[in-house]
Amino acid sequence: MKASIIVIGTELTRGIIQDRNSSLISRELTHLGVHVSEIVALPDDGTIKSVLGALMRSSDLVVITGGLGPTSDDMTRYAIAEAAGRDLVRDGKCWDFLLSKLGEKAYGANSRQAMIPEGFSAIANRNGTAPGFYGYGGSTLLVSLPGPPREMEPMLYESVLPLVKEKLDLPDVERDEYTSFITAEAKLEELYGSVDPELDWGTRFQDYRISLYVSGKTKTLRDETVARLRKLVGVHRIEDGQVDALGILISTLESRGATVSAAESCTGGLASELLTSRPGSSRYMLGSVTSYAPSVKRDVLGVKESTIERYGTVSAKCAIEMAEGVLRLTGSDYSLSVTGVAGPDTDEGKAVGTVHLAFAGRGRETSSVLLRFSSWGRDSIRRKAVVSAFLLLSAYIDGEDPAAIAGGWEYI
Amino acid sequence: MKASIIVIGTELTRGIIQDRNSSLISRELTHLGVHVSEIVALPDDGTIKSVLGALMRSSDLVVITGGLGPTSDDMTRYAIAEAAGRDLVRDGKCWDFLLSKLGEKAYGANSRQAMIPEGFSAIANRNGTAPGFYGYGGSTLLVSLPGPPREMEPMLYESVLPLVKEKLDLPDVERDEYTSFITAEAKLEELYGSVDPELDWGTRFQDYRISLYVSGKTKTLRDETVARLRKLVGVHRIEDGQVDALGILISTLESRGATVSAAESCTGGLASELLTSRPGSSRYMLGSVTSYAPSVKRDVLGVKESTIERYGTVSAKCAIEMAEGVLRLTGSDYSLSVTGVAGPDTDEGKAVGTVHLAFAGRGRETSSVLLRFSSWGRDSIRRKAVVSAFLLLSAYIDGEDPAAIAGGWEYI
Repeated sequence: MKASIIVIGTELTRGIIQDRNSSLISRELTHLGVHVSEIVALPDDGTIKSVLGALMRSSDLVVITGGLGPTSDDMTRYAIAEAAGRDLVRDGKCWDFLLSKLGEKAYGANSRQAMIPEGFSAIANRNGTAPGFYGYGGSTLLVSLPGPPREMEPMLYESVLPLVKEKLDLPDVERDEYTSFITAEAKLEELYGSVDPELDWGTRFQDYRISLYVSGKTKTLRDETVARLRKLVGVHRIEDGQVDALGILISTLESRGATVSAAESCTGGLASELLTSRPGSSRYMLGSVTSYAPSVKRDVLGVKESTIERYGTVSAKCAIEMAEGVLRLTGSDYSLSVTGVAGPDTDEGKAVGTVHLAFAGRGRETSSVLLRFSSWGRDSIRRKAVVSAFLLLSAYIDGEDPAAIAGGWEYI
Repeated sequence: MKASIIVIGTELTRGIIQDRNSSLISRELTHLGVHVSEIVALPDDGTIKSVLGALMRSSDLVVITGGLGPTSDDMTRYAIAEAAGRDLVRDGKCWDFLLSKLGEKAYGANSRQAMIPEGFSAIANRNGTAPGFYGYGGSTLLVSLPGPPREMEPMLYESVLPLVKEKLDLPDVERDEYTSFITAEAKLEELYGSVDPELDWGTRFQDYRISLYVSGKTKTLRDETVARLRKLVGVHRIEDGQVDALGILISTLESRGATVSAAESCTGGLASELLTSRPGSSRYMLGSVTSYAPSVKRDVLGVKESTIERYGTVSAKCAIEMAEGVLRLTGSDYSLSVTGVAGPDTDEGKAVGTVHLAFAGRGRETSSVLLRFSSWGRDSIRRKAVVSAFLLLSAYIDGEDPAAIAGGWEYI
């Protein structure tokens, strides 16, 4: 089965905004087993007519986003009606929907949004006024969706993908989702290639993690493949489902009603910023100290002058005293600390990517971990350090040994 | 003049990675006065041949990115040679370049990368092994560039845009660049529309700021337009050129050899994270305290219990004591503090978006500012608060009055 995608919008071809729809649609169609043979971005100037005609000849499915607004620029519905050889007619359901959303205003320019090609079916839009619609032009299934991602995305998942699967009579493809931490996306792809060249798979970079999809063949085969991958990278590095390191730590804290604090040096407040990023974070996060200057490590966190002199600030000893200092200062149940070299220059003779973490808890022995990240730039080292700290603090709270876990980590 | 863009890569049509090249190229071509009539993404499967043929008939310029790698998948060079009716020949300069970069390895699969269509000219690539090339297919200018953005981008700016301007004989278009802070992109576009519907312009969202371009007509007209826009939003909100709030603050600090610290509540460490994000930040950043819990405001920063009881933690008084507390604790020359309601819930009866900032300096009177951000979600309020704090601290260090400045800010 072959599909094409058309995204409409002069703001796309003028480079004012970047298209995010086509990437999402193509990924999801690929996962259904559909081959996306062409993605075309066009301005709102009517060129869609000729392009749609050409793509219909080569495609079983054409998905079109954008150009459904109420202004005269929006030519998509006319172009599709013409390509399908139908008239535009007012759809009863769409009209009722518009009336309920807009009241009197529905009689103005918006009334156009209730018009769809005759014989086509509407697709409900719960985040906007423009419904989508689908139907056939010759033997090609045509699906038209609004352009704004927050309107398009729920329609894609709730209506279009099930529809495409049914109309194109696609077989079920079983698919497992995982989340991978700290390994760079390119490296993960390389590792995946080394454990399995057969299954259909993909990755998606998501800020502080990478989503990994494995699909096709048997569940056993998929499980074996991921088990091989897990063995290569180490414990807690590939988790089932769509999870994130912060979420894992928060669950661990909340399940115990425990509080946390952070002492940061090279990460500069990033751990703290993330720990306060979700609504309700005051339930578990008390506070943090960013001790960027050695004097602040000493004066605020109580790191000993002799520790700094003998071991330097990038040391296990300093990390331990930082974690214990912030625990004492804030009165939290647990704390983490990070001190290291984010680069671009080496520090105290230690290589860029050298990071010491420590984890403290009331009545618990403080634990420290040394990680050596491959240098991918300052920002990447900071992110990897924080993700590592969240995963390892969660394990520490669960009674595991962070040093033993991190000792088995590869490709970081 | 009409242009088309083709981006090649199966990872694009499978939705594994997202295309960033076409957006950049289309924006820059638009700024040169070229109309981009179509952007097409294709897999590495040879479909480029027919698509290129069709686009050449309707375009004065076709820019193609991707498909220049050494593997057999990479069909771009063959397709272009065929479309232009030329043979592929080894280019002397490219071959010398490959040899210098790869040594013996140049004789392997990479040797293909020195092959370009006869009569075409190479475009140097300083970040990779695949040179680009350009030449004519009929009367259409064809430009081929590698796919990785870090290779493509410098080639675009250094070689392709000047080349396109010359070959297509485009007139000079004068263009001014500005940076806008805190106003949302959609609101800025709306405001721009209200002050000038005539000049060519565009915006680009850049994490903590918005780039604004105004081009065409006369310098006087452009200046007047931007002056009207400035008047609408207030002082320090639209600056000349490509600048950012953090950079403005760092310049102010570095020009005085001054140090800074931060006390944060609702921003949770974001100001601190940004203040330590650039190489060399230890020159000016000493440290910070994230006092998320009231107890940390009191015990670590020394905010008075009576202040918290009488005014609450979201108050000017609390902000002032936080800023003075962290100044004392770290010994920095200047400090900033942020306390407010990032949402989604109101706090202490104060509305989401209510943010108090304070600015302290040794021997200076502490200054506080109240801002009421329109609610665009937790993350947006945190970002706006930090950007505001950087701009206003910079003004405070320069001897200006932050409260007077922020009092004139609109559309925040």
